[in-house]
Amino acid sequence: MRIDIISCVPRLLESPFSHSILQRAQDKGLVEVVVHDLRDFSTSKSRQVDDYAFGGGAGMVMTIEPIDACVSHLKSQRAYEEVIYMTPDGERLDQSVSNELSLKGNLIILCGHYKGVDERVRESLITREISVGDYVLSGGELAAAVLADSVIRLVPGVLSDETSALTDSFQDDLLAPPVYTRPANYKGMEVPEVLLSGHQKKIEDWRYDQAVERTKARRPNLWKE
Amino acid sequence: MRIDIISCVPRLLESPFSHSILQRAQDKGLVEVVVHDLRDFSTSKSRQVDDYAFGGGAGMVMTIEPIDACVSHLKSQRAYEEVIYMTPDGERLDQSVSNELSLKGNLIILCGHYKGVDERVRESLITREISVGDYVLSGGELAAAVLADSVIRLVPGVLSDETSALTDSFQDDLLAPPVYTRPANYKGMEVPEVLLSGHQKKIEDWRYDQAVERTKARRPNLWKE
Repeated sequence: MRIDIISCVPRLLESPFSHSILQRAQDKGLVEVVVHDLRDFSTSKSRQVDDYAFGGGAGMVMTIEPIDACVSHLKSQRAYEEVIYMTPDGERLDQSVSNELSLKGNLIILCGHYKGVDERVRESLITREISVGDYVLSGGELAAAVLADSVIRLVPGVLSDETSALTDSFQDDLLAPPVYTRPANYKGMEVPEVLLSGHQKKIEDWRYDQAVERTKARRPNLWKE
Repeated sequence: MRIDIISCVPRLLESPFSHSILQRAQDKGLVEVVVHDLRDFSTSKSRQVDDYAFGGGAGMVMTIEPIDACVSHLKSQRAYEEVIYMTPDGERLDQSVSNELSLKGNLIILCGHYKGVDERVRESLITREISVGDYVLSGGELAAAVLADSVIRLVPGVLSDETSALTDSFQDDLLAPPVYTRPANYKGMEVPEVLLSGHQKKIEDWRYDQAVERTKARRPNLWKE
């Protein structure tokens, strides 16, 4: 899988892909993440990529030309299955969207900044608009990192122990059950006895019951009888 | 406002707070963000902060001791209004939560990693559990950055033009209307005429209608007649 991220503040994306799981996924050759500085595709001397909004009002708008130039440049090199725009009014990201995208080959992710991109970018260049949640961020960079992270960790081979993702929240429409580790007693707070019993069937039953209980209490919409 | 973020992979949080709006908010003295390496609070020689899960299964669990030590250390220095744990089964972040948190003084944000934290951390140290969305990330670091970003940009004075946040999506339960900038005609795609009319009342009406239409189509749950 290859993910090309287009941003006008690419430095924001330096650390998320340079450490931990996302770094290891790249080291293993499973995923390639390439961040592009949109300003490299500006034709203005000052490398401008935004301008005032038609009709007035606060905030700058990202112009279509450099985005078109960057996307065209990338498409001339390989085929892309999606050109994704991160925006709060897009399709809401959830685990099923991440699962689906983890099966794709090449993706472009465009990060909005300022007041967003010229609407004609969305109409003519974007194939999919995704929101990480119903809140506004100062730019699409963190949203792009969130999307890439949630997708990359599902690419087979990325997590060292594949069962680790299978027991995550949402993978079976259930939240994960509570987890405990040593010490068994911490300042009087004890670990549930069943987890110390060594009785694997009872432990699995307890975990399933806890997951169901937690899902019903916290995400009733996920719960399917 | 002061935000203390506790992480076992603090390097993941280097770039989001070192550029753009979040950096400027700190430069202006409006917000202080301090990232703490949880391993500094480990009592083991190898600076370990996780251990195997009781009851078996894939994935490591973050132990309570270093977290308790770090939170206690911070609380001994100042009062905190919330100790937040980023977790996919927490209360879902939305713009109203961000607005509410932007009025707070001091916040602690704990990032989970691996399979999450020992449940007793959540029971005894955490005052609020927040999820950025119904998907799983490789750690709470990006989620913490998202939460901090969404909150900090709402702190008065952070955005250079305050009306800029007021016209964002969600601030009035409406998605933002489409925006356009130069050129007025790009490869045959034209800007809606009304935006070039100079007629401010008509422009405002058009924007409101577009915002309502977009909200009804994309987030019908937000729309209140």
